Amino acid sequence: MTNNPIVKGKLVCVALNDASQFEAMQAEFNEAPYKSAPTQPVLYFKPHNTWSTEGATVEWAMSEGQAAESMVVGASLAVVFGKECCRVSQEEALSYVGGYSLVHDFSLPELTYYRPDIKGKCLDGSAPIGSVVVPASDVADPQTLTVVTQVNGQTVSEMPVSNMVRSVAELISTISYIMTLQPGDVIAVGFPGQRAPIKQGDKVSSAIAGVIELNNVAGRA
Amino acid sequence: MTNNPIVKGKLVCVALNDASQFEAMQAEFNEAPYKSAPTQPVLYFKPHNTWSTEGATVEWAMSEGQAAESMVVGASLAVVFGKECCRVSQEEALSYVGGYSLVHDFSLPELTYYRPDIKGKCLDGSAPIGSVVVPASDVADPQTLTVVTQVNGQTVSEMPVSNMVRSVAELISTISYIMTLQPGDVIAVGFPGQRAPIKQGDKVSSAIAGVIELNNVAGRA
Repeated sequence: MTNNPIVKGKLVCVALNDASQFEAMQAEFNEAPYKSAPTQPVLYFKPHNTWSTEGATVEWAMSEGQAAESMVVGASLAVVFGKECCRVSQEEALSYVGGYSLVHDFSLPELTYYRPDIKGKCLDGSAPIGSVVVPASDVADPQTLTVVTQVNGQTVSEMPVSNMVRSVAELISTISYIMTLQPGDVIAVGFPGQRAPIKQGDKVSSAIAGVIELNNVAGRA
Repeated sequence: MTNNPIVKGKLVCVALNDASQFEAMQAEFNEAPYKSAPTQPVLYFKPHNTWSTEGATVEWAMSEGQAAESMVVGASLAVVFGKECCRVSQEEALSYVGGYSLVHDFSLPELTYYRPDIKGKCLDGSAPIGSVVVPASDVADPQTLTVVTQVNGQTVSEMPVSNMVRSVAELISTISYIMTLQPGDVIAVGFPGQRAPIKQGDKVSSAIAGVIELNNVAGRA
Protein backbone atom coordinates (compact mmCIF):
# COMPACT_ATOMS: atom_id res chain seq x y z
CA MET A 1 0.00 0.00 0.00
CA THR A 2 1.20 3.49 -0.79
CA ASN A 3 1.44 5.97 2.01
CA ASN A 4 0.35 9.48 1.29
CA PRO A 5 2.45 12.16 2.98
CA ILE A 6 -0.28 14.83 2.99
CA VAL A 7 -3.22 13.31 4.84
CA LYS A 8 -2.48 12.78 8.49
CA GLY A 9 -5.68 12.13 10.35
CA LYS A 10 -8.85 11.86 8.30
CA LEU A 11 -10.18 12.33 4.80
CA VAL A 12 -13.79 13.50 4.96
CA CYS A 13 -15.74 13.48 1.68
CA VAL A 14 -18.91 15.39 0.94
CA ALA A 15 -21.56 13.52 -1.06
CA LEU A 16 -24.44 15.02 -3.04
CA ASN A 17 -22.83 18.47 -3.29
CA ASP A 18 -23.24 18.85 -7.06
CA ALA A 19 -26.18 21.26 -7.37
CA SER A 20 -27.44 19.75 -10.64
CA GLN A 21 -27.39 16.24 -9.15
CA PHE A 22 -29.11 17.46 -6.03
CA GLU A 23 -31.83 19.02 -8.16
CA ALA A 24 -32.23 15.87 -10.27
CA MET A 25 -32.64 13.71 -7.16
CA GLN A 26 -35.57 15.60 -5.64
CA ALA A 27 -38.06 12.90 -6.60
CA GLU A 28 -35.91 10.20 -5.03
CA PHE A 29 -35.38 12.28 -1.88
CA ASN A 30 -39.14 12.54 -1.47
CA GLU A 31 -39.60 8.78 -1.29
CA ALA A 32 -39.58 6.69 1.91
CA PRO A 33 -37.95 6.62 4.36
CA TYR A 34 -36.92 10.31 4.36
CA LYS A 35 -39.60 11.99 2.28
CA SER A 36 -37.45 15.12 2.00
CA ALA A 37 -34.03 16.19 0.78
CA PRO A 38 -31.16 16.07 3.27
CA THR A 39 -30.90 19.37 5.15
CA GLN A 40 -27.31 18.77 6.24
CA PRO A 41 -24.23 17.81 4.21
CA VAL A 42 -23.96 14.06 3.66
CA LEU A 43 -20.46 12.92 4.61
CA TYR A 44 -18.40 9.79 4.23
CA PHE A 45 -14.86 8.80 5.10
CA LYS A 46 -12.10 7.39 2.94
CA PRO A 47 -10.01 5.60 5.60
CA HIS A 48 -6.25 5.21 5.93
CA ASN A 49 -5.96 2.19 3.64
CA THR A 50 -7.44 4.21 0.74
CA TRP A 51 -4.88 7.03 0.79
CA SER A 52 -2.63 6.98 -2.25
CA THR A 53 -0.59 9.32 -4.41
CA GLU A 54 -0.07 11.12 -7.70
CA GLY A 55 0.99 8.61 -10.35
CA ALA A 56 -0.28 5.56 -8.50
CA THR A 57 -1.99 2.68 -10.25
CA VAL A 58 -5.20 2.07 -8.35
CA GLU A 59 -5.94 -1.57 -7.62
CA TRP A 60 -8.98 -2.88 -9.50
CA ALA A 61 -11.76 -3.89 -7.11
CA MET A 62 -12.35 -7.57 -6.44
CA SER A 63 -15.77 -8.78 -5.43
CA GLU A 64 -16.18 -12.31 -4.11
CA GLY A 65 -12.97 -13.47 -5.77
CA GLN A 66 -13.90 -11.91 -9.13
CA ALA A 67 -12.74 -8.67 -10.71
CA ALA A 68 -15.56 -6.14 -10.21
CA GLU A 69 -17.51 -5.53 -13.41
CA SER A 70 -17.23 -1.79 -13.22
CA MET A 71 -15.71 1.01 -11.24
CA VAL A 72 -16.35 4.74 -11.27
CA VAL A 73 -14.24 7.76 -10.48
CA GLY A 74 -14.76 11.37 -9.51
CA ALA A 75 -12.40 14.19 -8.59
CA SER A 76 -12.71 16.87 -5.96
CA LEU A 77 -10.90 19.91 -4.72
CA ALA A 78 -9.13 18.81 -1.52
CA VAL A 79 -9.03 21.28 1.35
CA VAL A 80 -6.01 20.55 3.56
CA PHE A 81 -6.15 21.97 7.09
CA GLY A 82 -3.21 23.92 8.44
CA LYS A 83 -4.59 24.66 11.90
CA GLU A 84 -6.90 22.93 14.37
CA CYS A 85 -10.41 23.97 13.44
CA CYS A 86 -13.32 23.58 15.88
CA ARG A 87 -16.71 25.33 15.68
CA VAL A 88 -15.71 28.15 13.39
CA SER A 89 -17.96 30.54 11.51
CA GLN A 90 -18.18 30.65 7.71
CA GLU A 91 -16.48 34.03 7.80
CA GLU A 92 -13.34 32.73 9.50
CA ALA A 93 -13.41 29.23 7.97
CA LEU A 94 -10.91 29.76 5.15
CA SER A 95 -8.24 31.01 7.56
CA TYR A 96 -7.84 27.44 8.84
CA VAL A 97 -6.95 26.10 5.40
CA GLY A 98 -3.27 25.33 4.91
CA GLY A 99 -3.69 24.70 1.20
CA TYR A 100 -5.48 22.99 -1.63
CA SER A 101 -4.91 19.82 -3.57
CA LEU A 102 -6.92 17.32 -5.61
CA VAL A 103 -8.35 13.96 -4.67
CA HIS A 104 -9.64 11.13 -6.86
CA ASP A 105 -12.34 8.92 -5.40
CA PHE A 106 -12.30 5.53 -7.13
CA SER A 107 -15.23 3.39 -6.03
CA LEU A 108 -17.77 0.78 -6.95
CA PRO A 109 -20.89 2.25 -8.59
CA GLU A 110 -23.33 3.30 -5.91
CA LEU A 111 -26.49 1.21 -5.74
CA THR A 112 -28.29 3.41 -3.28
CA TYR A 113 -27.58 6.60 -1.46
CA TYR A 114 -29.21 5.37 1.74
CA ARG A 115 -26.81 3.11 3.51
CA PRO A 116 -23.13 3.94 4.19
CA ASP A 117 -21.48 2.34 1.19
CA ILE A 118 -18.40 1.20 3.05
CA LYS A 119 -17.73 -1.66 0.66
CA GLY A 120 -17.75 0.54 -2.43
CA LYS A 121 -15.79 3.43 -0.91
CA CYS A 122 -13.06 1.81 1.19
CA LEU A 123 -11.13 -0.03 -1.52
CA ASP A 124 -7.38 -0.11 -0.85
CA GLY A 125 -5.58 2.80 -2.53
CA SER A 126 -8.80 4.25 -3.94
CA ALA A 127 -8.17 7.84 -2.79
CA PRO A 128 -5.07 9.25 -4.50
CA ILE A 129 -4.26 12.78 -3.40
CA GLY A 130 -2.07 15.25 -5.31
CA SER A 131 1.63 15.38 -4.51
CA VAL A 132 1.48 19.12 -3.95
CA VAL A 133 -0.51 21.25 -1.54
CA VAL A 134 -0.92 24.67 -3.11
CA PRO A 135 -0.62 27.18 -0.25
CA ALA A 136 -3.91 28.82 0.64
CA SER A 137 -2.26 32.21 0.17
CA ASP A 138 -1.86 31.39 -3.57
CA VAL A 139 -5.61 30.81 -4.03
CA ALA A 140 -7.58 34.03 -3.69
CA ASP A 141 -10.99 32.33 -3.67
CA PRO A 142 -11.58 28.57 -3.86
CA GLN A 143 -15.09 29.22 -5.23
CA THR A 144 -13.53 30.31 -8.55
CA LEU A 145 -11.77 26.98 -9.16
CA THR A 146 -12.97 24.34 -11.63
CA VAL A 147 -11.97 20.69 -11.52
CA VAL A 148 -11.74 19.04 -14.94
CA THR A 149 -11.42 15.27 -15.24
CA GLN A 150 -10.33 13.30 -18.28
CA VAL A 151 -10.41 9.55 -18.87
CA ASN A 152 -7.92 8.48 -21.55
CA GLY A 153 -7.67 12.09 -22.67
CA GLN A 154 -11.44 12.63 -23.07
CA THR A 155 -13.07 15.16 -20.79
CA VAL A 156 -15.71 13.42 -18.69
CA SER A 157 -16.55 16.20 -16.26
CA GLU A 158 -16.09 19.87 -15.53
CA MET A 159 -17.07 20.76 -12.00
CA PRO A 160 -16.90 24.41 -10.96
CA VAL A 161 -16.76 24.73 -7.19
CA SER A 162 -19.31 27.52 -7.60
CA ASN A 163 -21.84 24.91 -8.82
CA MET A 164 -21.88 23.17 -5.48
CA VAL A 165 -24.83 23.20 -3.11
CA ARG A 166 -22.56 24.30 -0.26
CA SER A 167 -19.49 26.50 -0.50
CA VAL A 168 -16.06 25.55 0.83
CA ALA A 169 -16.43 28.03 3.71
CA GLU A 170 -19.90 26.76 4.61
CA LEU A 171 -18.73 23.13 4.61
CA ILE A 172 -15.73 23.87 6.81
CA SER A 173 -17.94 25.69 9.27
CA THR A 174 -20.64 23.00 9.36
CA ILE A 175 -18.19 20.09 9.61
CA SER A 176 -16.16 21.89 12.29
CA TYR A 177 -19.29 21.82 14.51
CA ILE A 178 -19.57 18.04 13.99
CA MET A 179 -15.91 17.12 14.57
CA THR A 180 -12.66 18.98 15.13
CA LEU A 181 -10.49 19.18 12.03
CA GLN A 182 -6.80 18.84 12.73
CA PRO A 183 -3.72 19.88 10.76
CA GLY A 184 -3.31 17.38 7.92
CA ASP A 185 -7.01 16.51 7.85
CA VAL A 186 -8.57 16.83 4.41
CA ILE A 187 -12.10 17.59 3.18
CA ALA A 188 -13.00 16.58 -0.37
CA VAL A 189 -15.67 19.22 -0.87
CA GLY A 190 -17.64 17.75 -3.74
CA PHE A 191 -17.63 15.40 -6.71
CA PRO A 192 -19.57 15.52 -9.97
CA GLY A 193 -22.97 13.90 -9.50
CA GLN A 194 -22.25 11.68 -12.46
CA ARG A 195 -19.18 9.64 -11.59
CA ALA A 196 -17.26 8.55 -14.69
CA PRO A 197 -17.33 4.83 -15.44
CA ILE A 198 -13.87 3.36 -16.03
CA LYS A 199 -12.36 0.14 -17.33
CA GLN A 200 -9.22 -1.67 -16.30
CA GLY A 201 -6.15 0.16 -17.59
CA ASP A 202 -7.87 3.55 -18.07
CA LYS A 203 -5.88 6.69 -17.43
CA VAL A 204 -7.62 9.17 -15.14
CA SER A 205 -6.31 12.73 -15.01
CA SER A 206 -7.78 15.70 -13.21
CA ALA A 207 -6.64 19.29 -13.09
CA ILE A 208 -7.44 22.70 -11.75
CA ALA A 209 -5.99 24.73 -14.61
CA GLY A 210 -2.75 26.43 -13.65
CA VAL A 211 -2.94 25.19 -10.09
CA ILE A 212 -2.56 21.42 -9.74
CA GLU A 213 -3.08 18.11 -11.49
CA LEU A 214 -3.50 14.49 -10.47
CA ASN A 215 -2.82 11.48 -12.69
CA ASN A 216 -3.70 7.88 -11.97
CA VAL A 217 -4.25 4.63 -13.78
CA ALA A 218 -6.94 2.06 -13.07
CA GLY A 219 -5.13 -1.20 -12.39
CA ARG A 220 -5.80 -4.59 -13.94
CA ALA A 221 -7.25 -7.41 -11.90
CA MET B 1 -7.97 16.42 22.35
CA THR B 2 -6.45 13.27 23.84
CA ASN B 3 -4.32 11.12 21.65
CA ASN B 4 -4.73 7.41 22.00
CA PRO B 5 -1.50 5.42 21.68
CA ILE B 6 -3.16 2.18 20.54
CA VAL B 7 -5.14 3.05 17.44
CA LYS B 8 -2.89 3.95 14.55
CA GLY B 9 -4.89 3.98 11.34
CA LYS B 10 -8.61 3.33 11.63
CA LEU B 11 -11.28 2.33 14.10
CA VAL B 12 -13.99 0.34 12.33
CA CYS B 13 -17.20 -0.31 14.26
CA VAL B 14 -19.78 -2.96 13.52
CA ALA B 15 -23.42 -1.91 13.90
CA LEU B 16 -26.43 -4.18 14.38
CA ASN B 17 -24.36 -7.14 15.59
CA ASP B 18 -26.41 -7.86 18.71
CA ALA B 19 -28.47 -10.92 17.73
CA SER B 20 -31.46 -9.96 19.91
CA GLN B 21 -31.53 -6.45 18.42
CA PHE B 22 -31.22 -7.85 14.90
CA GLU B 23 -34.17 -10.16 15.58
CA ALA B 24 -36.26 -7.34 17.04
CA MET B 25 -35.65 -5.15 13.99
CA GLN B 26 -36.95 -7.60 11.36
CA ALA B 27 -40.17 -5.64 10.85
CA GLU B 28 -38.23 -2.40 10.35
CA PHE B 29 -35.80 -4.10 7.96
CA ASN B 30 -38.71 -5.23 5.83
CA GLU B 31 -39.92 -1.68 5.22
CA ALA B 32 -38.90 0.54 2.30
CA PRO B 33 -36.37 1.17 0.91
CA TYR B 34 -34.59 -2.16 1.62
CA LYS B 35 -37.44 -4.55 2.29
CA SER B 36 -35.02 -7.09 3.75
CA ALA B 37 -32.45 -7.39 6.52
CA PRO B 38 -28.86 -6.44 5.68
CA THR B 39 -26.95 -9.44 4.37
CA GLN B 40 -23.53 -7.93 5.10
CA PRO B 41 -22.14 -6.37 8.28
CA VAL B 42 -23.07 -2.71 8.65
CA LEU B 43 -19.93 -0.72 9.40
CA TYR B 44 -19.11 2.80 10.52
CA PHE B 45 -15.95 4.66 11.39
CA LYS B 46 -14.98 6.55 14.51
CA PRO B 47 -12.37 8.94 13.06
CA HIS B 48 -9.13 10.24 14.53
CA ASN B 49 -10.70 13.10 16.50
CA THR B 50 -12.84 10.60 18.45
CA TRP B 51 -10.00 8.48 19.81
CA SER B 52 -9.52 8.88 23.52
CA THR B 53 -8.27 6.98 26.53
CA GLU B 54 -8.96 5.17 29.78
CA GLY B 55 -9.94 7.67 32.46
CA ALA B 56 -10.88 10.44 30.04
CA THR B 57 -13.84 12.71 30.59
CA VAL B 58 -15.80 12.66 27.35
CA GLU B 59 -16.95 16.05 26.14
CA TRP B 60 -20.74 16.46 26.27
CA ALA B 61 -22.19 16.92 22.77
CA MET B 62 -23.22 20.38 21.65
CA SER B 63 -25.91 20.80 19.06
CA GLU B 64 -26.51 24.20 17.50
CA GLY B 65 -24.88 25.99 20.40
CA GLN B 66 -26.90 24.05 23.01
CA ALA B 67 -25.89 21.09 25.15
CA ALA B 68 -27.41 18.00 23.54
CA GLU B 69 -30.43 16.74 25.47
CA SER B 70 -29.23 13.18 25.67
CA MET B 71 -26.31 10.97 24.82
CA VAL B 72 -25.98 7.20 24.77
CA VAL B 73 -23.08 4.83 25.27
CA GLY B 74 -22.20 1.26 24.40
CA ALA B 75 -19.09 -0.84 24.90
CA SER B 76 -17.47 -3.34 22.59
CA LEU B 77 -14.61 -5.77 22.58
CA ALA B 78 -11.85 -4.08 20.54
CA VAL B 79 -9.80 -6.27 18.22
CA VAL B 80 -6.37 -4.71 17.67
CA PHE B 81 -4.48 -5.89 14.61
CA GLY B 82 -0.87 -7.00 14.93
CA LYS B 83 -0.23 -7.84 11.29
CA GLU B 84 -1.43 -6.55 7.92
CA CYS B 85 -4.59 -8.48 7.12
CA CYS B 86 -5.98 -8.63 3.59
CA ARG B 87 -8.52 -11.14 2.25
CA VAL B 88 -8.09 -13.78 4.90
CA SER B 89 -10.31 -16.76 5.66
CA GLN B 90 -12.28 -17.16 8.89
CA GLU B 91 -9.98 -20.03 9.81
CA GLU B 92 -6.83 -17.91 9.72
CA ALA B 93 -8.45 -14.61 10.83
CA LEU B 94 -7.56 -14.71 14.52
CA SER B 95 -3.84 -15.15 13.75
CA TYR B 96 -3.77 -11.49 12.59
CA VAL B 97 -4.96 -10.19 15.95
CA GLY B 98 -2.27 -8.60 18.09
CA GLY B 99 -4.53 -8.32 21.10
CA TYR B 100 -7.81 -7.26 22.63
CA SER B 101 -9.02 -4.17 24.40
CA LEU B 102 -12.30 -2.36 25.09
CA VAL B 103 -13.86 0.61 23.36
CA HIS B 104 -16.67 2.91 24.50
CA ASP B 105 -18.80 4.49 21.81
CA PHE B 106 -20.40 7.68 23.13
CA SER B 107 -22.86 9.12 20.65
CA LEU B 108 -26.08 10.97 20.08
CA PRO B 109 -29.14 8.70 20.12
CA GLU B 110 -29.67 7.24 16.68
CA LEU B 111 -32.76 8.54 14.90
CA THR B 112 -32.60 6.12 12.01
CA TYR B 113 -30.35 3.30 10.97
CA TYR B 114 -30.52 4.30 7.30
CA ARG B 115 -28.17 7.18 6.76
CA PRO B 116 -24.55 7.28 7.96
CA ASP B 117 -24.95 9.05 11.26
CA ILE B 118 -21.75 11.04 11.02
CA LYS B 119 -22.99 13.82 13.26
CA GLY B 120 -23.95 11.49 16.09
CA LYS B 121 -20.89 9.27 15.87
CA CYS B 122 -17.96 11.61 15.24
CA LEU B 123 -18.04 13.70 18.42
CA ASP B 124 -14.58 14.69 19.62
CA GLY B 125 -13.16 12.22 22.12
CA SER B 126 -16.21 9.96 21.92
CA ALA B 127 -14.28 6.69 21.44
CA PRO B 128 -12.12 5.97 24.49
CA ILE B 129 -10.07 2.81 24.14
CA GLY B 130 -8.54 0.82 27.00
CA SER B 131 -5.00 1.63 28.06
CA VAL B 132 -3.95 -2.00 27.73
CA VAL B 133 -3.98 -4.37 24.81
CA VAL B 134 -4.24 -7.89 26.19
CA PRO B 135 -2.03 -10.07 23.98
CA ALA B 136 -4.01 -12.39 21.73
CA SER B 137 -2.01 -15.31 23.15
CA ASP B 138 -3.65 -14.66 26.56
CA VAL B 139 -7.18 -15.02 25.14
CA ALA B 140 -7.92 -18.59 24.11
CA ASP B 141 -11.21 -17.77 22.36
CA PRO B 142 -12.71 -14.27 22.04
CA GLN B 143 -16.16 -15.83 21.62
CA THR B 144 -16.16 -16.74 25.32
CA LEU B 145 -15.76 -13.12 26.49
CA THR B 146 -18.58 -11.00 27.92
CA VAL B 147 -18.57 -7.21 28.07
CA VAL B 148 -20.40 -5.77 31.09
CA THR B 149 -21.18 -2.05 31.27
CA GLN B 150 -22.17 -0.07 34.34
CA VAL B 151 -23.41 3.50 34.58
CA ASN B 152 -22.84 4.97 38.06
CA GLY B 153 -22.28 1.44 39.36
CA GLN B 154 -25.55 0.01 37.97
CA THR B 155 -25.22 -2.70 35.34
CA VAL B 156 -26.89 -1.50 32.13
CA SER B 157 -25.78 -4.27 29.75
CA GLU B 158 -24.15 -7.66 29.58
CA MET B 159 -23.11 -8.55 26.08
CA PRO B 160 -21.57 -11.97 25.50
CA VAL B 161 -19.58 -12.02 22.26
CA SER B 162 -21.25 -15.36 21.58
CA ASN B 163 -24.62 -13.52 21.28
CA MET B 164 -23.46 -11.60 18.23
CA VAL B 165 -24.83 -12.20 14.74
CA ARG B 166 -21.29 -12.56 13.38
CA SER B 167 -18.27 -13.97 15.20
CA VAL B 168 -14.98 -12.13 15.60
CA ALA B 169 -13.33 -14.43 13.05
CA GLU B 170 -16.15 -13.97 10.52
CA LEU B 171 -16.03 -10.18 10.87
CA ILE B 172 -12.26 -10.05 10.42
CA SER B 173 -12.52 -12.19 7.30
CA THR B 174 -15.41 -10.22 5.78
CA ILE B 175 -13.92 -6.80 6.55
CA SER B 176 -10.49 -7.88 5.26
CA TYR B 177 -12.10 -8.43 1.84
CA ILE B 178 -13.49 -4.88 1.91
CA MET B 179 -10.34 -3.09 3.10
CA THR B 180 -6.88 -4.05 4.26
CA LEU B 181 -6.47 -3.93 8.02
CA GLN B 182 -3.09 -2.68 9.15
CA PRO B 183 -1.16 -3.04 12.42
CA GLY B 184 -2.79 -0.71 14.95
CA ASP B 185 -6.15 -0.76 13.19
CA VAL B 186 -9.03 -1.67 15.49
CA ILE B 187 -12.41 -3.32 14.93
CA ALA B 188 -15.11 -2.78 17.56
CA VAL B 189 -16.97 -6.01 16.89
CA GLY B 190 -20.37 -5.25 18.36
CA PHE B 191 -22.32 -3.14 20.83
CA PRO B 192 -25.49 -3.93 22.79
CA GLY B 193 -28.53 -3.17 20.66
CA GLN B 194 -29.88 -1.01 23.46
CA ARG B 195 -27.34 1.74 24.03
CA ALA B 196 -27.47 3.08 27.59
CA PRO B 197 -28.79 6.63 27.98
CA ILE B 198 -26.48 8.84 30.04
CA LYS B 199 -26.59 12.26 31.70
CA GLN B 200 -23.87 14.83 32.20
CA GLY B 201 -21.45 13.68 34.90
CA ASP B 202 -22.33 9.97 34.70
CA LYS B 203 -19.56 7.44 35.30
CA VAL B 204 -19.37 4.76 32.61
CA SER B 205 -17.33 1.64 33.33
CA SER B 206 -17.02 -1.48 31.25
CA ALA B 207 -15.13 -4.67 31.90
CA ILE B 208 -14.36 -8.08 30.57
CA ALA B 209 -14.01 -9.89 33.88
CA GLY B 210 -10.41 -10.68 34.70
CA VAL B 211 -9.16 -9.31 31.40
CA ILE B 212 -9.57 -5.56 31.05
CA GLU B 213 -11.65 -2.59 32.12
CA LEU B 214 -12.39 0.89 30.80
CA ASN B 215 -13.59 3.83 32.89
CA ASN B 216 -14.85 7.17 31.61
CA VAL B 217 -16.97 10.06 32.72
CA ALA B 218 -19.52 11.96 30.66
CA GLY B 219 -18.45 15.59 30.73
CA ARG B 220 -20.55 18.61 31.58
CA ALA B 221 -21.49 21.11 28.90
